[in-house]
Amino acid sequence: MLPDNSNISWVLQQVGDIQLENRLRTAPKSNEVEIAIKATGICGSDVHYWVHGHIGDFIVREPMVLGHESSGIVTNVGRDCKTLKVGDQVAIEPGVPCYTCHFCKHGQYNLCKDMKFAATPPVNGSLCQYYYCPEDFCVRLPDNFPSLEEAALIEPLSVGVHACKLAELKVGQTVMIFGAGTVGLLAGAVAKASGAIKVTMVDINQSRLNFAKNYVANEIVLAESIIPQGLNSIDFSKMFSQKLLESGVEQADVVLECSGAETSIQTGIYMTKSGGTFVQIGMGKNVAPIPMVDIIVREIKIRGSFRYCNTYKKAIQLVSAGLINLKPLITHRFNFQNALKAFETVKEGNDGVIKALILGME
Amino acid sequence: MLPDNSNISWVLQQVGDIQLENRLRTAPKSNEVEIAIKATGICGSDVHYWVHGHIGDFIVREPMVLGHESSGIVTNVGRDCKTLKVGDQVAIEPGVPCYTCHFCKHGQYNLCKDMKFAATPPVNGSLCQYYYCPEDFCVRLPDNFPSLEEAALIEPLSVGVHACKLAELKVGQTVMIFGAGTVGLLAGAVAKASGAIKVTMVDINQSRLNFAKNYVANEIVLAESIIPQGLNSIDFSKMFSQKLLESGVEQADVVLECSGAETSIQTGIYMTKSGGTFVQIGMGKNVAPIPMVDIIVREIKIRGSFRYCNTYKKAIQLVSAGLINLKPLITHRFNFQNALKAFETVKEGNDGVIKALILGME
Amino acid sequence: MLPDNSNISWVLQQVGDIQLENRLRTAPKSNEVEIAIKATGICGSDVHYWVHGHIGDFIVREPMVLGHESSGIVTNVGRDCKTLKVGDQVAIEPGVPCYTCHFCKHGQYNLCKDMKFAATPPVNGSLCQYYYCPEDFCVRLPDNFPSLEEAALIEPLSVGVHACKLAELKVGQTVMIFGAGTVGLLAGAVAKASGAIKVTMVDINQSRLNFAKNYVANEIVLAESIIPQGLNSIDFSKMFSQKLLESGVEQADVVLECSGAETSIQTGIYMTKSGGTFVQIGMGKNVAPIPMVDIIVREIKIRGSFRYCNTYKKAIQLVSAGLINLKPLITHRFNFQNALKAFETVKEGNDGVIKALILGME
Amino acid sequence: MLPDNSNISWVLQQVGDIQLENRLRTAPKSNEVEIAIKATGICGSDVHYWVHGHIGDFIVREPMVLGHESSGIVTNVGRDCKTLKVGDQVAIEPGVPCYTCHFCKHGQYNLCKDMKFAATPPVNGSLCQYYYCPEDFCVRLPDNFPSLEEAALIEPLSVGVHACKLAELKVGQTVMIFGAGTVGLLAGAVAKASGAIKVTMVDINQSRLNFAKNYVANEIVLAESIIPQGLNSIDFSKMFSQKLLESGVEQADVVLECSGAETSIQTGIYMTKSGGTFVQIGMGKNVAPIPMVDIIVREIKIRGSFRYCNTYKKAIQLVSAGLINLKPLITHRFNFQNALKAFETVKEGNDGVIKALILGME
Repeated sequence: MLPDNSNISWVLQQVGDIQLENRLRTAPKSNEVEIAIKATGICGSDVHYWVHGHIGDFIVREPMVLGHESSGIVTNVGRDCKTLKVGDQVAIEPGVPCYTCHFCKHGQYNLCKDMKFAATPPVNGSLCQYYYCPEDFCVRLPDNFPSLEEAALIEPLSVGVHACKLAELKVGQTVMIFGAGTVGLLAGAVAKASGAIKVTMVDINQSRLNFAKNYVANEIVLAESIIPQGLNSIDFSKMFSQKLLESGVEQADVVLECSGAETSIQTGIYMTKSGGTFVQIGMGKNVAPIPMVDIIVREIKIRGSFRYCNTYKKAIQLVSAGLINLKPLITHRFNFQNALKAFETVKEGNDGVIKALILGME
Repeated sequence: MLPDNSNISWVLQQVGDIQLENRLRTAPKSNEVEIAIKATGICGSDVHYWVHGHIGDFIVREPMVLGHESSGIVTNVGRDCKTLKVGDQVAIEPGVPCYTCHFCKHGQYNLCKDMKFAATPPVNGSLCQYYYCPEDFCVRLPDNFPSLEEAALIEPLSVGVHACKLAELKVGQTVMIFGAGTVGLLAGAVAKASGAIKVTMVDINQSRLNFAKNYVANEIVLAESIIPQGLNSIDFSKMFSQKLLESGVEQADVVLECSGAETSIQTGIYMTKSGGTFVQIGMGKNVAPIPMVDIIVREIKIRGSFRYCNTYKKAIQLVSAGLINLKPLITHRFNFQNALKAFETVKEGNDGVIKALILGME
Repeated sequence: MLPDNSNISWVLQQVGDIQLENRLRTAPKSNEVEIAIKATGICGSDVHYWVHGHIGDFIVREPMVLGHESSGIVTNVGRDCKTLKVGDQVAIEPGVPCYTCHFCKHGQYNLCKDMKFAATPPVNGSLCQYYYCPEDFCVRLPDNFPSLEEAALIEPLSVGVHACKLAELKVGQTVMIFGAGTVGLLAGAVAKASGAIKVTMVDINQSRLNFAKNYVANEIVLAESIIPQGLNSIDFSKMFSQKLLESGVEQADVVLECSGAETSIQTGIYMTKSGGTFVQIGMGKNVAPIPMVDIIVREIKIRGSFRYCNTYKKAIQLVSAGLINLKPLITHRFNFQNALKAFETVKEGNDGVIKALILGME
Repeated sequence: MLPDNSNISWVLQQVGDIQLENRLRTAPKSNEVEIAIKATGICGSDVHYWVHGHIGDFIVREPMVLGHESSGIVTNVGRDCKTLKVGDQVAIEPGVPCYTCHFCKHGQYNLCKDMKFAATPPVNGSLCQYYYCPEDFCVRLPDNFPSLEEAALIEPLSVGVHACKLAELKVGQTVMIFGAGTVGLLAGAVAKASGAIKVTMVDINQSRLNFAKNYVANEIVLAESIIPQGLNSIDFSKMFSQKLLESGVEQADVVLECSGAETSIQTGIYMTKSGGTFVQIGMGKNVAPIPMVDIIVREIKIRGSFRYCNTYKKAIQLVSAGLINLKPLITHRFNFQNALKAFETVKEGNDGVIKALILGME
């Protein structure tokens, strides 16, 4: 039996090497709570660090606990905590900013340059037994919130809430979403909850589109994944957009690009209505060629959307109010000890995996 | 049998006197279409002109056709019309602005000082056989729009769409609505369609609240209608707000005041969250005492909302997409010849009347 | 000679009784800096606490240091401070919020319910030798900032910056300001800096208007201060507005009400253009009767403006860039020991006093 | 001597061939006024049509009068005109939209697909004796407007007003402008009038930068015009941005790109503050490679800005109020008969030409 102060954690030791490690349980700081983790979703970024050891300039140089989509139960509270108590069920916001910079004070803490974000090196993540987090970045689940499993999905749902906010999405608008993975599906769910009269989802994978159609999409579009020889991406995208328009797919008020693929970016811009908004969420290549004259003469608005800010309470309330159902997205569950299997499942992307959860250690 | 050029119309001859009158059918102007009216909703303002002969500075000085909530079928088109054809089913926007003033050019034509609004003196209304309207103020109903009856309700729905737009209502917000009449109910429907996580409706009439509860409200509040002797309205409203808060009714992000009652205005402001928005829609007394220091220290935003602007297409799409159901609001139907009975029904307000429709002349 | 750890302060002991008191100098907390105060402006609220012992629900129950418009030089820094060092000249933002509530995280910390605001009971103010303040609420003056005296006026300038922000004031708009005191004048200065093509100032005091005309106003209007017998305030205000319009004074895109007077509020609303914005800044009576039907049919926006938020850096930059000149407003200077004289001068309001400064203790 | 009904006009007959032609004077339509043209600025687009016969998809297929930056005096008014009279001096807005489409009704008529824009094929321009224009697209110059020559520059000034509006430029912000031609300079003038605390102008031409420095720029930056061999444009732009930052040039809240050059677009994005706004105004190559991951993680907003909408009155007022001085930009004047010389001067771009005016026919 483990000692009381054990804190078993899944640690990325180096590229390709995740191992269980006992890190010590400690006392929460005065403004922190201790949370017994009950569910953690595996994100593409976790897998990417495991396989490649870095994402862009973020490089894993020391062993790091993985995981940042977690929920749990409060087991201890720091002495200055006022809103949470032992036993509360919470969703955990994984990024803690500095509180005092320009961005923090202007309600845009996702742009804080001193952000400490779980499982982004060198900050440890939450795929562990006990996690420590400032009280104000844990949100208590209301009594009518379905379960701690769904609570782990508040993190990717937040990405959708934030993107739709930046899009200034309004009731009665049409929305087109590129990329029918977890983020695209959840962005679609937020769009529907916000009164979108049509959500069109575009992907290169028919089975993901079928899932999307059942989950939230009014219309699905199978994109071509290979650019014919002799065409550059922009010509291909322009032709594909023309083909869509001719087949009855209409330009949308808001386009949410969740794939990061160059041709999706371009097609997405062409498929944005004049005066409409295109939001880039998916990370792809550093540089994308875009149709700038078209952007000028049709006054397209383009916005980058990064993580989220002030979304957790709203996301939880949308689920509690029944406007968004997270359950269908949880396609796989693994025991804490089987976490490696979860990573492999997500890496391979088979079995219709949308979101794989790793449950808390028993 | 009536001649082909007859245009039987319900004309307010003078206070209290509505009569059928045959006004001549004519040719639409080059930019106009002729519409055979199929359904017209009776609005409180129609009844008010009938009973009082004026609303504020708008005085009925000459006989005037009543009605401004109408739908119909296009029977003729002017030579410059491009988007409509004979046989199209349309909802009719009753106010035609000047197109060239500051407000018209800035997308706020509801503030145009040269607005010609149906059944607002001296402009004739649409409770007639044939109505003439610029093509761009008739909106064709999509094939999946339920019926021409519901189309008559696009007018009051537009009031709700406009008010929610001014409120900058966002997904995940809470909304409190004062006044559970047609406009309040439809504002509530738009709020729900826009992703409001809670709609609270307040009224002094329990049966209207019961209707609201079935239709759209998550929470209903019966307001007290009589101010106890010795209290002024503001003290009464403050106490009532306190009582609501203590009973678990929460302040809302957005308050939509559709009753015009002084104590509703005041209670509504107290029940607006700090930094939230209060929209005044209902017309009441010219002057209202409001808690200005509270408005300052809690930075409440107050907006007047007048009619609507650019709402028809959006309102129709919300119904077509199934986000709003207008049918339950149509509680009464009258044949064209029985219009007087409709006016009396609305005037008396009994029989659970929400919206009474006068059908088109057979 | 005073000991090194003395901190001579002006303390409001009870109503009407301000006395010098030596409070001990201490070490700044880890996130705080210690500032040797060099100039403090006297605000109407300081005088009000002195004379009345309370403002609304804020009651002076224990001795309290007065003053909240201060500048000074950093004399010590806490161990976690990163941006300031000993010797830096700073303007001090007097309100420190909780950092973690809804409002703090949304960039609206002026609405924080746990705000600790200098010289608002029970929080001590800055009319002392040494003041302690979190580093992030002290802003270093750039080298080209004119002087520490002007720096004390960053506080009231912030009120103007915030109000103009809430007004969403845009280049090319016209602005009307009621109340030509410090806040009104500085709101006018911000309006001019923001590209207002006309600033009209309204007051009941001709000498203040003359000052305004020299300082920033394109147009001045002497308001009548007495309501003729038999008229209520709203009728008076409507008639006065009519008179202004007939005399060629035009409605403004933005109205900033800095007086708190009932007839100014009402006249201000009537003098707001249709679709325009009226911002209430001046605190007056709790309740104000306003023309609600006019607000509806002309879609006036009304906003309460409370203190400020994220304004200090911007206000300082506007002065440094030469867009706003604070110097003319400093009409009186008093040595630290003569503070009582400053309070009396502001209380009496004679001698053309706009802003009286109390200099730091030598 | 010419007959009374002559209307001598400069007509682009075919590529490279502009000739004087007498087109008949006529009666204005009911909503139009006739204007005797007094000054016309030559725009790069006029020269481009002359030299190349097309801009993008706009191809000159029939003879077309050139010119679209004009002012003049009203010489006749249509019978429905209400606001203008013979003798009024006016600036002429050259684009007339359809008034009834989605964009026209939403206050974005610059996006109207039926826009008729002077000197954009096949619509005739205003480089003629008499021009006909709907009354509501002619704006009367106030008495204190400097002259009809400056009035011709209201057109390019409008481009700057519109771009700054889309940028949501606020008082106290910093602005960086790429391209110090007429549009860049006027965008800078609007930025200064709007309360920008710093305007930085970037160009590859030192003499234009010197002009900018005298006119409006706080800071000027000479850009390198040649990409070193072996570097792609994005690497070059990133390095150049780094060099700027190291030399003390700071990122700006708002970047206005008026050159259309690929490296300016890229550098401009890198030089936009996190959360800031980049507006693309200058037309260049159809496709631009942009740093999309940077746009995401720093949440940059990008907007296309096309022509203008509802800017004329505001632009005129800014000049009348003395906030913007257009005179320094008028570097060359030509008599009507010497128009060809004006075109050549602009084409060559020597002699420090900023704006060349062709005066009205005597």
